[in-house]
Amino acid sequence: MKDSRGMKSFDEYYMKEAIKEAEKAYDSNEVPVGAVVVYREKIIGRAHNQIKLLKDPTAHAEMIALTQAAAYLGSERLLETTVYATIEPCAMCAGAMILGRVKRLVFGAIDLKTGAFGSVLDLNKLKLNHKISVTKRILENECAALLKEFFKIKRRGRLVA
Amino acid sequence: MKDSRGMKSFDEYYMKEAIKEAEKAYDSNEVPVGAVVVYREKIIGRAHNQIKLLKDPTAHAEMIALTQAAAYLGSERLLETTVYATIEPCAMCAGAMILGRVKRLVFGAIDLKTGAFGSVLDLNKLKLNHKISVTKRILENECAALLKEFFKIKRRGRLVA
Repeated sequence: MKDSRGMKSFDEYYMKEAIKEAEKAYDSNEVPVGAVVVYREKIIGRAHNQIKLLKDPTAHAEMIALTQAAAYLGSERLLETTVYATIEPCAMCAGAMILGRVKRLVFGAIDLKTGAFGSVLDLNKLKLNHKISVTKRILENECAALLKEFFKIKRRGRLVA
Repeated sequence: MKDSRGMKSFDEYYMKEAIKEAEKAYDSNEVPVGAVVVYREKIIGRAHNQIKLLKDPTAHAEMIALTQAAAYLGSERLLETTVYATIEPCAMCAGAMILGRVKRLVFGAIDLKTGAFGSVLDLNKLKLNHKISVTKRILENECAALLKEFFKIKRRGRLVA
């Protein structure tokens, strides 16, 4: 299942789960980003953005999913986990993944404004004590489409208001 | 009170509060880092590292204090706040401060291994949509001494064990 072709379908399966989370965010009027954390093929964390709901700038999908995964594992080390995120993580979320020793990150859309694995910076290129294996652009169009639609409606709302 | 000399004593007052938090971490066998968030001269968030206690890689002092401050303000925007941290924040915590639009950061000790405001990177120098006014090395020796003592005892423990 995990040859290069099998790995892709494997990754797409979990990314679809992350997209389901992003859709929940969309329905709640939050920036539509979702994330799941996978350990031994099991989802042990899944979350969507809850910044507006919780009124908390740290409540990104990835952060909530990482905290859930750590609770599941009973450890602050998320060794052997893979994080699936619908968009390239920001410095906060990327930093949290490195602190948690996440093994692998798979993300969908590139984030040219805040992405911390290649866009505005690349945490993997700094002298930190852990590096994460990163796979980009899995189901990129689906991930990006949700965000585009969300911001299009937001802009329209501002024009009308 | 807030001329350059007054500002320093003002900053030292709040840094001492952050150091009290770091001491709590030390007493709990956590890496001794503390943080407070100040808004209109009032402390609205205060916390110490709780990574081991909560078994959560995101439970840095700064993150917990930011979440408390957001709850106090009832907003994900921490406008007009100052964060006092005993050590230079890592990428996760620095990223969270930028997301939260924190106005000013005052920190104690430099962190050459993970510091994200000048050491391994400087988030203020990237094209992000917010910059934070940073004051470094306030009560640096006191902040660093706690960390040095903690790691000295840790190393000794490893040699004995």
